[in-house]
Amino acid sequence: MSSNYTIGHYLLDRLAELGVHHMFGVPGDYNLSFLDEVIDHKEIEWIGNCNELNAAYAADGYARVNGMAALITTFGVGELSAVNGIAGSYAERVPVVKITGTPTTNVMDNGLYVHHTLGNGKFDHFSTMYKEVTVAQTFLTQENAAQEIDRVLLTCWTDKRPVHINLPTDVYDKPISKPYNSLLDSAILSNEETLKQMIVDVPERINSAKRPVILADFEVTRYRAQKALLQFAEKTGFPVATLSMGKSAFNEAHPQFIGVYNGDLSSSYVQKRIDQSDCIISVGVKLTDSITGGFSHQFSKDNVIHIHPFSVQFNSTKYAPATMIDSLHALSSAITKRKAEDLDILSLTSQMAAKSYTAAETEITQERFFERIAAFLHENDVLLAEQGTSFFGAATMPLPKDTTFIGQPLWGSIGYTLPALLGSQLADKNRRNVLLIGDGSFQLTAQELSTMLRQHIKPVIFLINNDGYTVERAIHGENQVYNDIQMWNYQELPAVLGPKDRSITFKVRTEIELEEALILAEQNYQHLVFIEVMMHRDDKPALLAELSKRFANQNV
Amino acid sequence: MSSNYTIGHYLLDRLAELGVHHMFGVPGDYNLSFLDEVIDHKEIEWIGNCNELNAAYAADGYARVNGMAALITTFGVGELSAVNGIAGSYAERVPVVKITGTPTTNVMDNGLYVHHTLGNGKFDHFSTMYKEVTVAQTFLTQENAAQEIDRVLLTCWTDKRPVHINLPTDVYDKPISKPYNSLLDSAILSNEETLKQMIVDVPERINSAKRPVILADFEVTRYRAQKALLQFAEKTGFPVATLSMGKSAFNEAHPQFIGVYNGDLSSSYVQKRIDQSDCIISVGVKLTDSITGGFSHQFSKDNVIHIHPFSVQFNSTKYAPATMIDSLHALSSAITKRKAEDLDILSLTSQMAAKSYTAAETEITQERFFERIAAFLHENDVLLAEQGTSFFGAATMPLPKDTTFIGQPLWGSIGYTLPALLGSQLADKNRRNVLLIGDGSFQLTAQELSTMLRQHIKPVIFLINNDGYTVERAIHGENQVYNDIQMWNYQELPAVLGPKDRSITFKVRTEIELEEALILAEQNYQHLVFIEVMMHRDDKPALLAELSKRFANQNV
Repeated sequence: MSSNYTIGHYLLDRLAELGVHHMFGVPGDYNLSFLDEVIDHKEIEWIGNCNELNAAYAADGYARVNGMAALITTFGVGELSAVNGIAGSYAERVPVVKITGTPTTNVMDNGLYVHHTLGNGKFDHFSTMYKEVTVAQTFLTQENAAQEIDRVLLTCWTDKRPVHINLPTDVYDKPISKPYNSLLDSAILSNEETLKQMIVDVPERINSAKRPVILADFEVTRYRAQKALLQFAEKTGFPVATLSMGKSAFNEAHPQFIGVYNGDLSSSYVQKRIDQSDCIISVGVKLTDSITGGFSHQFSKDNVIHIHPFSVQFNSTKYAPATMIDSLHALSSAITKRKAEDLDILSLTSQMAAKSYTAAETEITQERFFERIAAFLHENDVLLAEQGTSFFGAATMPLPKDTTFIGQPLWGSIGYTLPALLGSQLADKNRRNVLLIGDGSFQLTAQELSTMLRQHIKPVIFLINNDGYTVERAIHGENQVYNDIQMWNYQELPAVLGPKDRSITFKVRTEIELEEALILAEQNYQHLVFIEVMMHRDDKPALLAELSKRFANQNV
Repeated sequence: MSSNYTIGHYLLDRLAELGVHHMFGVPGDYNLSFLDEVIDHKEIEWIGNCNELNAAYAADGYARVNGMAALITTFGVGELSAVNGIAGSYAERVPVVKITGTPTTNVMDNGLYVHHTLGNGKFDHFSTMYKEVTVAQTFLTQENAAQEIDRVLLTCWTDKRPVHINLPTDVYDKPISKPYNSLLDSAILSNEETLKQMIVDVPERINSAKRPVILADFEVTRYRAQKALLQFAEKTGFPVATLSMGKSAFNEAHPQFIGVYNGDLSSSYVQKRIDQSDCIISVGVKLTDSITGGFSHQFSKDNVIHIHPFSVQFNSTKYAPATMIDSLHALSSAITKRKAEDLDILSLTSQMAAKSYTAAETEITQERFFERIAAFLHENDVLLAEQGTSFFGAATMPLPKDTTFIGQPLWGSIGYTLPALLGSQLADKNRRNVLLIGDGSFQLTAQELSTMLRQHIKPVIFLINNDGYTVERAIHGENQVYNDIQMWNYQELPAVLGPKDRSITFKVRTEIELEEALILAEQNYQHLVFIEVMMHRDDKPALLAELSKRFANQNV
């Protein structure tokens, strides 16, 4: 052991430089001694999770709010438990640094049959597996550490996708020089000539369009281009829609926001406005089945100008390197502003009939629940919605300004949002985090409630208890036993998993009971609030009801 | 859909033929319609788990008692959550059939960006990952199904390692002919000439040895050769030791059983008897760090005759194909029986001083706990011991006749045994299952208690609450915060995760309290019994205390 500056310090300093201030994970004997350096690091806090999959989900949620995240597990057992979470981060472009503590170089070089291996003397099985779901990988040595740490972290930052760092237990404490430059000095910059040419070619097409529209998706959020998008939208006056995967990339209370596009499952106004547009400015979009009503979008590719993270593409011409933010800024200055009346904008706010919601002594339905939750949300909340009734119910619910919406419609791993909530809440303790999750999903990762109570965080959790996998029933097997789950006494769980005085729980069946719980939830913001909401098994949001039929057809 | 005989029926019939009568897993939209066939199958019962990792652990536990197991998950998300469990089955040679429900052939051929994928149109990422931890893999088509199902299932059966079957959601219901032969007709048989030659060459070496000994390990159990081993031992009169990974492969109450060998951490008698033997008949042995006191075994390779699952090896000569059972039978008839007095056998039973255990009003220590549990066990129990204090405490505890011992010393994935208990208990409801698990491990997979309550099974669970990861504290970071966990109100958990009347729980601090709980546990065999045993944080079994020092040194 050395008291000097080590490879471990270098790695942690680089992470801190990129804004990572929490390290998630589970201890194991191949990472224990490095964890001493984590504990000692002044800018990074250790967050021990209940298991490694939960750690990976928590890191993902953290990165979505914070910009980047890291987790560490032990070799083999720990890293494979985490891999589904890492794959989700890959699919949905979330920059997570996965560190694996490995046996010593000596043990590996000699092919010893040690624990946490397949017992065949080979140590590359799990790295090989991680290659499928990470954009860069490395096995650190005493010699390559600085160069390799910089390479993989910069790739993680640039691609917004996970990377895998193998850190042998005999390497972390070896001496190394402190970094002498800023890592982001080497980040991709736009080429000035490229931007100039793009501004010569592209604006004409946009300025001559009759019904231009902006369609924004999740890459806007990942590349932190929300402000640039807002500026672009306001400079041009164009209407803005998002896909549900990119929900909250644009302020939904803004007069130019027209709603969430879901292919032919959109509102008829939004569907027409997108599908019949003669010029879609597509910003950070990826079209997948869950967010297009099962590929039911009908706009013509010829009418789309793509703004990607590092390029602009229009017909067969690609302008690169050009960052999304620079491209939006450059275009903002070159496009003629339209008047709202010329563009036929019907804002989401004006579309939502000003219904007056009054709670009744009736059972809570999905429809009424989301109507009520829309009013419960505050500006600047973080809203997490689990894949299932929660996501598809929330997808069409209008959000207040500066809300961050977190869902996982592409990867769609049930159980994801509960640990993700741990991460998103730790990323900014000053924002209220609100989770919507169904009982089926909750059971997969329920123990992570314990870490929330341990960390004294105070989110509001709505557990929608509809007695099993409603999203699966909607697709196939409505009354089949495989869509049933064991009923839990959910509202008693927080007091089992942590000190009883850190949480306040409710179980509500009627609108009046929900109303009372919501009032108490607002008052008890110094507690973790857990509200079990009873709903009918077969009740589901309208969007899910339709989409699930498409999925059933897609599976035949 | 067809009401005729389908590919799905074929797969299920072949599984049932191999003794698989339960299917573990979690539903997802890429496996839902095939699950209808599982539900309808007369010989296979569906067991829905709380999550996929737990399903894989349950399948592993089931296969260890039953001989083979199967689980099904959905594509991507589900299969990656399960992969750590499958890797454990690979490492420890447990035959588990992993079925993945995939998108349709059409969706995959067209590279559609559907949910549960990385969104890049590629569908082989996860199969590629599974190749690292399975011995055979297949993607079923309408054309290849019968041939491929037979190939991978037979490989699973033969190698006792997991296999991976991808079943597209448009393939399972296609027509196929019923199998016309028995699958095991094609299993590996011994060659008669090989066996004859082996019997000519090998017995002389054994008969001329002065201190022959049998060292048996886990492959005896996996290849169901316990009876053949017993017969061989009794025919020869030789003393028998096992490694802890193979604990219970030989009746520990037998007068020829001398104890568990742990390298130089064995009892001095066992250590000498193995390390100084001039002829070790090694049956199904694999020497790994956790079970050899960190590679401290000192016997000479030249003195070892290896009986492997399909071969006998002696010096540089290999006799194959020769199954373990046939080889043991053949050798039994060719070796001169020795008298016990000539072999200096000190049986484990005689080594254990007939201590009279009397419960006192004192706190429970690790040492006294395992002394007491040894007496609590019945003949024919299944004992599961979680990696950590439980495994290393149980490793040296004498077991009654016909006990099955389940641990995971090579893969060592904490949290494994709780879901494994679900599987092992379902494999034979008539045997009492007893689990020893620490609090740190319990938190990883705790929700699977719910499935036990749902399935009305009645094991006895000892939760050793020693306030964190004691096994890690023993290796490094005794007082470090990363080895702490959130304290739960453990004994309240069963009543939250299922109907209150299906479990009976205790929390015990003193030997007297433990005594009372054990008596009630015997009386309440119609309930799941959950006993939380409070122990000191730093107390640990002697074997673990020593081994953890070796592990710490191995990590430098």
